[in-house]
Amino acid sequence: MTIRIGIVTISDRASTGVYEDLSGPAIRDTINAYLKSPWDEVCRVIPDEQPVIEAALRVLCDEEGCCLVLTTGGTGPARRDVTPEATAAVCDKIMDGFGEQMRAVSLKFVPTAILSRQIAGIRGQSLIINLPGKPKSIRECLDAVFPAVPYCVDLIGGPFMETNEDVVKAFRPKG
Amino acid sequence: MTIRIGIVTISDRASTGVYEDLSGPAIRDTINAYLKSPWDEVCRVIPDEQPVIEAALRVLCDEEGCCLVLTTGGTGPARRDVTPEATAAVCDKIMDGFGEQMRAVSLKFVPTAILSRQIAGIRGQSLIINLPGKPKSIRECLDAVFPAVPYCVDLIGGPFMETNEDVVKAFRPKG
Amino acid sequence: MTIRIGIVTISDRASTGVYEDLSGPAIRDTINAYLKSPWDEVCRVIPDEQPVIEAALRVLCDEEGCCLVLTTGGTGPARRDVTPEATAAVCDKIMDGFGEQMRAVSLKFVPTAILSRQIAGIRGQSLIINLPGKPKSIRECLDAVFPAVPYCVDLIGGPFMETNEDVVKAFRPKG
Repeated sequence: MTIRIGIVTISDRASTGVYEDLSGPAIRDTINAYLKSPWDEVCRVIPDEQPVIEAALRVLCDEEGCCLVLTTGGTGPARRDVTPEATAAVCDKIMDGFGEQMRAVSLKFVPTAILSRQIAGIRGQSLIINLPGKPKSIRECLDAVFPAVPYCVDLIGGPFMETNEDVVKAFRPKG
Repeated sequence: MTIRIGIVTISDRASTGVYEDLSGPAIRDTINAYLKSPWDEVCRVIPDEQPVIEAALRVLCDEEGCCLVLTTGGTGPARRDVTPEATAAVCDKIMDGFGEQMRAVSLKFVPTAILSRQIAGIRGQSLIINLPGKPKSIRECLDAVFPAVPYCVDLIGGPFMETNEDVVKAFRPKG
Repeated sequence: MTIRIGIVTISDRASTGVYEDLSGPAIRDTINAYLKSPWDEVCRVIPDEQPVIEAALRVLCDEEGCCLVLTTGGTGPARRDVTPEATAAVCDKIMDGFGEQMRAVSLKFVPTAILSRQIAGIRGQSLIINLPGKPKSIRECLDAVFPAVPYCVDLIGGPFMETNEDVVKAFRPKG
């Protein structure tokens, strides 16, 4: 089974070309560092519009066959920040532990980490995780949760992900 | 007032006898170690079916008069894991602090603790808490939250629970 | 833009005068210590009735123009505790990080912190935060989350809040 991973940059400005998307590439570089298994990326850069985000997530999960979809941007308290709402709308199950853990880790760096509304959830056989907008914070969050990602993908019927153990150690409970 | 505690093992395999239920007995042993007050158990072993779980929780709370109902199993990301959904469906109030604290404690042992979707909530005069499936993790989670359980049961109008203070110390704020 | 802050004491007993409201004044004293900017308070003392709480929150946000509304009381597991439900009902966005962080901090003092169902959320251009009932716990919770409050208010289009940096340091990320 091929490992396909969706990377969705959600930003009004990046989607209209007002500024360059640095967050999507930061996710790609991180996953390249993490994964020993070969993987394909499916990228999107879209505006902060809930129906557009929902549609992109559905396509990546259901048609593109991504076992993991990573979003960046749109998780704050501002009016245009609707990524968590879009994610919740398309997911069957919400995984509260991801948001809790990502905020707990970000709090070690900035007290404004509590303003992030990042969530994660399961849609069919795909795990969707909201990441922050800033490349530095993206890496901090992924480092915190990625050890649990391969086992989660196993549990929902996805492909076996092998990691570079010197970078990130996937944990799979015995028995 | 008698202390009645419900213990619900939620597992397709245990409910059909494919394997022995070790989790329900682990909960019973833990509560025996914790409680100085006499208590009665009301046990169920049922499959991972949301309507069946909801029905069992309703009976234990409303008819059996359990002030505390402890479930084990069915809290992960897999398709058949629906214990949190069934719990939320029958509860009046969700107590987010229990899930947060149980995951935080389990995280000290395994990074996959973030995959647990355990919740707790109030139905009428009963506190329902989802526990993990593995006996070792059950004890870790109960150790983390049980000090707050007797006071919670006080607040919802249940019986007074006295604990063995050398095993677990119930905390009741003064005034 | 004037800084207006709502302070809502939610308590059956305080609202009927059975006992003196100590929690509202504790919030006022804390904000006086925190803020260098001048601010006006809008106070309410109301019973634990969900429609009454919702109405008070709507008035403070929409008519009184409070950029920040702080509630105290009504966040426990008891039947009359409905402050989180009222808050969720009037908010556009729930900010899970506030509740998580306040419980994590309170847990350092009392194991019953997990019984608090405090939440925070955004309604239009207002941030609403549920605080505990006890003056001592109010200060502990506000100390934990206030560094992120001025930036949150910036992001939702509210007035610029300047803090007394020797008491609490507002954090605003660069760029």
